[in-house]
Amino acid sequence: MEKEEKTAISPEKLSKILDIAQKRFARFGLAKTTMSDIADDLGVSKASLYYYFPDKECIFKKVMNREQGTFCGQMEKLLQSDKKIDAVLTTYIEHRIQYLKALLNLGQLTHEVFSATKPLYASLGKEFFEREKNLIAEILQKGIDRNELQKINVDEYAGFFVHVLRSLRLYTLSLKELWEQGNIDKEIKKEYMFFTKIFLKSIEKL
Amino acid sequence: MEKEEKTAISPEKLSKILDIAQKRFARFGLAKTTMSDIADDLGVSKASLYYYFPDKECIFKKVMNREQGTFCGQMEKLLQSDKKIDAVLTTYIEHRIQYLKALLNLGQLTHEVFSATKPLYASLGKEFFEREKNLIAEILQKGIDRNELQKINVDEYAGFFVHVLRSLRLYTLSLKELWEQGNIDKEIKKEYMFFTKIFLKSIEKL
Repeated sequence: MEKEEKTAISPEKLSKILDIAQKRFARFGLAKTTMSDIADDLGVSKASLYYYFPDKECIFKKVMNREQGTFCGQMEKLLQSDKKIDAVLTTYIEHRIQYLKALLNLGQLTHEVFSATKPLYASLGKEFFEREKNLIAEILQKGIDRNELQKINVDEYAGFFVHVLRSLRLYTLSLKELWEQGNIDKEIKKEYMFFTKIFLKSIEKL
Repeated sequence: MEKEEKTAISPEKLSKILDIAQKRFARFGLAKTTMSDIADDLGVSKASLYYYFPDKECIFKKVMNREQGTFCGQMEKLLQSDKKIDAVLTTYIEHRIQYLKALLNLGQLTHEVFSATKPLYASLGKEFFEREKNLIAEILQKGIDRNELQKINVDEYAGFFVHVLRSLRLYTLSLKELWEQGNIDKEIKKEYMFFTKIFLKSIEKL
């Protein structure tokens, strides 16, 4: 079973711990951060941090979930906008890349650390899949309602869209050379954009 | 440096060794096959097999390359046919899945063995990428010449097409549950077909 936070914690306290931990992760990465570091930054004892969290991975996951929440919040605002569907989906991809960059930077990832931390990222991804799929389905439905898109099965198309983004990401992240060149997020963005173009073309109302 | 066959070998001899080894790989898989097994099947001494090949992985790779050659041969025949481009690309995907199945069966793969043998498959894949991309580019060019497809940059689209197939494959092969259910090739086929449909829709001549 996966480790979870051990004791109920007030939202204010949690938010403060996550702020402090996030700063450290962003600067030193997950691998080089210890529970002691975070406790020191907070000015509390290690024991009191362990009172709430079993390990740093659990804190890291909470930081990531919060980032996910921010991303989804931005996206729901985007859905309220009057932009055309291709602009909405393009903006979506741009924010998605920002979120991915935050994830990668927080881990201060290299190809090696990524390979070792994959299970952690995978568990984050599982929870996120449904949320992302629903967002895309809403975007597509809006496009149909506005007569910009053909009548398609939005759930099927949204699921496939998210699945392809995820596959492209995994494949590109597995290429060691790209990490070394340091432009892995640019490469993924290029692929996302190309796929989004094809995807939209295939369902736009003629 | 990668291990390669050590000594020049006549085409007839090579073909016989690969036939025999392929039968054994197909029945027992790469992991459970030894150089001794292959030598026994051939009725030669282990030493004489080692004279030509440094290890079983090298023989496995040659078997795979031969399968690749067969696949590409079929595809070149397909290119000569008068079928419409969507039928050509669908047939391509069907053969591609057959080839994938052959690869998986020859390795008698499970998720664990796949994870361990990934570098071997990756090195096979690298050589194959260009070949596959060129085939797809030819198919697309034919579609343009016949006025079935829009004028696109065939190299760019072909490269992206092969890249997406590869990404989908890697992602789906990384999902442990699907291996356990034993229908991983069906799942990959479904994804390939969906992507091919979208891809073609996006570039068909209106």
